[in-house]
Amino acid sequence: MTDVKKELLYTGKAKNVYKTENDDEVLIEFRDDITALDGGKKDTLNKKGAYNALISSKFFKILEDEGILTQFIKLINENEMIAKSLDMIPLEVICRNIATGSLLRKYPFHKNQHLQPPVLQFDYKNDVYHDPMLNDSIIIALEIATEEQLQQIRQITLKINKVLSEFLYERGLILVDFKVEFGFDKDGNIVLGDEISPDTTRLWDSETHKNFDKDIFRKGEEGVVDAYEVVVNLVLNDEEKQKWNID
Amino acid sequence: MTDVKKELLYTGKAKNVYKTENDDEVLIEFRDDITALDGGKKDTLNKKGAYNALISSKFFKILEDEGILTQFIKLINENEMIAKSLDMIPLEVICRNIATGSLLRKYPFHKNQHLQPPVLQFDYKNDVYHDPMLNDSIIIALEIATEEQLQQIRQITLKINKVLSEFLYERGLILVDFKVEFGFDKDGNIVLGDEISPDTTRLWDSETHKNFDKDIFRKGEEGVVDAYEVVVNLVLNDEEKQKWNID
Ligand SMILES: Nc1ncnc2c1ncn2[C@@H]1O[C@H](COP(=O)(O)OP(=O)(O)O)[C@@H](O)[C@H]1O
Ligand SMILES: Nc1ncnc2c1ncn2[C@@H]1O[C@H](COP(=O)(O)OP(=O)(O)O)[C@@H](O)[C@H]1O
Ligand SMILES: [Mg+2]
Ligand SMILES: [Mg+2]
Repeated sequence: MTDVKKELLYTGKAKNVYKTENDDEVLIEFRDDITALDGGKKDTLNKKGAYNALISSKFFKILEDEGILTQFIKLINENEMIAKSLDMIPLEVICRNIATGSLLRKYPFHKNQHLQPPVLQFDYKNDVYHDPMLNDSIIIALEIATEEQLQQIRQITLKINKVLSEFLYERGLILVDFKVEFGFDKDGNIVLGDEISPDTTRLWDSETHKNFDKDIFRKGEEGVVDAYEVVVNLVLNDEEKQKWNID
Repeated sequence: MTDVKKELLYTGKAKNVYKTENDDEVLIEFRDDITALDGGKKDTLNKKGAYNALISSKFFKILEDEGILTQFIKLINENEMIAKSLDMIPLEVICRNIATGSLLRKYPFHKNQHLQPPVLQFDYKNDVYHDPMLNDSIIIALEIATEEQLQQIRQITLKINKVLSEFLYERGLILVDFKVEFGFDKDGNIVLGDEISPDTTRLWDSETHKNFDKDIFRKGEEGVVDAYEVVVNLVLNDEEKQKWNID
C-alpha cells in the first residue's frame, strides 16, 4: 500500500507526514523512533510505531463516535494512517487529572494530587524556544489562536479527557495526563490531529499505578514496547486484533 | 514618627513591613536595598528607598482618584508609608505594552513590538520555585485565586496601565511594562498593594528610549539613583517637592 506515499511533507521526532493523491488527505507514518528530554534521549524500538498507530486509530474512532472531529480516515497499514490534512496550530494542549512529572517540578502540587477540574496547559510547539509554556494573553499576542479558538480547544480537550478516561478506566488504566494537537481542516473547523498514544499520554495501572507509557523510556527502564503492547491488547477488540495480527 | 513602628511583620528584598497600633494598617519602610536576577545581584543605593516611596505614593494617589482601591493611606516619612494591611495574593501581575526583557528571551516577539491589547502575565511569588509563570488553570488548582478574582485583577491592572501610561506620557516617559501585587482588605476587596516604582516598572524616555528604571542596575550601569531622581522630579508637583525637599 506504500504506493499512496508521495512527497514527504514533514519529518518529525516520531512520525513522517506525506502528501497523497488527494490534497485534503495526508499519510502519517508512525516510526519506531522515540525521543525524550527535549531530544536529549533517543532510541528506535521495533513495533513502537505500529502500536502507537493502532492505539491512536482506536482512540480517534471512539472520539468520532462521541461527536469530536478528528483527522482519522483509515489505517492502511499497521503503522500508516490516512488522515485529514490539517493546518496545524503550534500548540501542545496538555490536560492533567493527576499531578505528576513537570507539574511537580515547577509548582507546589502534592505528588499524585487529584486535579478536579483537570489542569489545562498550552505549550508553544517551537524547538528553537524549547516549547515554553504560554498563557492566553501571549497566545493571542503571538497570533497563534484567538480567545474564541482557545475556548473551543479547551472544551474539546475536556471532552476528549472524559471520553478516554472512562474508556480506559473500564480497561484497568488511569488516564493521568495527555497532550493533544489540533489543526484547521479545509473548512476551518478545529480538528484533533497528530496522535494519542503511550508516547503522548501517561497511563497507569489503576491498582498498582505502574506506568504503561513513555515514562518507562524517560526513566531509562526496560520493557517500553512490552508495555505499549499491553495497551494495544487492552484497547483493541477481538475483530481489530485479528485484523492486525495482535494477540 | 518612627514610634509607630512596632513588631516587624515581614522583611523582603526591598521593604520592611511593620505592625502599627491599628490592626488594619501597616507601616511599609522602603529600604535602599536593590536586587536583581533572582537575588543574584545586590546593592544598597542611598535615597533609593525614599524615591520609590515618593513615586509609589504619587501613583497610588492618582489611581485612587480614578476609582482604583489602593493600600495607600499616607507617607509619614520620605521612606515610610502607612498602608492598609492586606492579605497578599502571591501573584506578580505583569502588564506589558512593549515586548522587551524576558518576553523576548522566552518567545518570538519582535524587539520593542507594540502589544495592543497589553500582554498580561501571572507569575507565582514563590522563592523556592523561582517565581514560575502560571496560567489560569494552574492558579485555580493551586487555590491562589478563583477565576472571578483573576478576571477582576485583569480589569484593575488594565485600568492601572491606562491611567499611569497617560500620566507618564504627558511627562515624557513611556510605561513599557510593570509588575503589581494585590491583596484582600478586611472587607474582602481586592486592593492594589506593594509598590509601583522604577524598581517594578520599565520607564523609557519617550524620545531616546533611555531607561529610567531598574534595568540600569540589571545592566550593571552607573546612575541608578540619578535616574530614579529624574522620575521623582517628573511625577511630583511643586507642592509635593517642597514638602519632601526634592531638587
Ligand atoms: N493531520 C495532520 N496534517 C498535517 N500535519 C500533521 C497532522 N497531524 C500531525 N501533523 C504534524 O506532523 C508532525 C508529526 O510528527 P512528529 O514526529 O510528532 O513531529 P514533532 O517532532 O514536531 O512532534 C507534527 O509536527 C504534527 O503537528
Ligand atoms: N499592604 C500590604 N500589607 C501586607 N503586606 C504587604 C502589603 N504590601 C506589600 N506587602 C508585602 O510585603 C512585602 C514587600 O517587601 P518586598 O521587599 O518587596 O518583598 P519581596 O522580596 O517578597 O518582594 C511583599 O511580600 C509584599 O507582598
Ligand atoms: Mg510530535
Ligand atoms: Mg517585592
